[in-house]
Amino acid sequence: MIGRLNHIAIAVPDLEAASAQYRDMLGAEVGAPQDEPDHGVTVVFITLPNTKVELLYPLGEGSPIAGFLDKNPSGGIHHMCYEVDDILAARDRLVDQGARILGSGEPKIGAHGKPVLFLHPKDFNGCLIELEET
Amino acid sequence: MIGRLNHIAIAVPDLEAASAQYRDMLGAEVGAPQDEPDHGVTVVFITLPNTKVELLYPLGEGSPIAGFLDKNPSGGIHHMCYEVDDILAARDRLVDQGARILGSGEPKIGAHGKPVLFLHPKDFNGCLIELEET
Repeated sequence: MIGRLNHIAIAVPDLEAASAQYRDMLGAEVGAPQDEPDHGVTVVFITLPNTKVELLYPLGEGSPIAGFLDKNPSGGIHHMCYEVDDILAARDRLVDQGARILGSGEPKIGAHGKPVLFLHPKDFNGCLIELEET
Repeated sequence: MIGRLNHIAIAVPDLEAASAQYRDMLGAEVGAPQDEPDHGVTVVFITLPNTKVELLYPLGEGSPIAGFLDKNPSGGIHHMCYEVDDILAARDRLVDQGARILGSGEPKIGAHGKPVLFLHPKDFNGCLIELEET
């Protein structure tokens, strides 16, 4: 069911410093910051040959990553995103097997303009998993 | 400098359950458990179309992931591994720019039989980064 790893997301306490580090120290291809007000984050995409890394920084009040950074002031790996062909079929299959979907259970449009869902970390080895329809 | 994301590693409290979940619930291609006594872990490789996920479970006394599972009893994303062409050149470039290498600073042979190093999480947004020469 799951396909490619679309990205791995890292919450960072200083977006400019983290971007500079990936660009200058690690020599990666680093994009410009993009505000995603619907998701409460500013995102920087890092393009690797086979997948992406997303740096996340809180945007506005009530950002979903503010609590994560409170608990992890240095930052940390926040979630991983797997691609699926059909997000509603994937959701139904997972729910049938007892997994929990975060929020309303209905897909939202994610940072790439495609439908996404998040799975409950307690059901998946403590990992926050995003599913993105591609 | 960094190339492909070689893998993302997840520490899990129950290797059999996590393997079954990725195989049966998420429909991924899941390998057989492999003991890596030199690294104090048993590993299950999950092959995605563009990268791998590694499930890690402690092996023997003093496993390097035992402390992580003590702090995160449900499990969690433990590290991410970037490929580099020349691990000694990568190390020297990073050290010159002030980054810290874990352990002796000399590469060890990793789970894939290739030289690896780990970078200090405090220098990299709270993320444990493995570099693997490919």
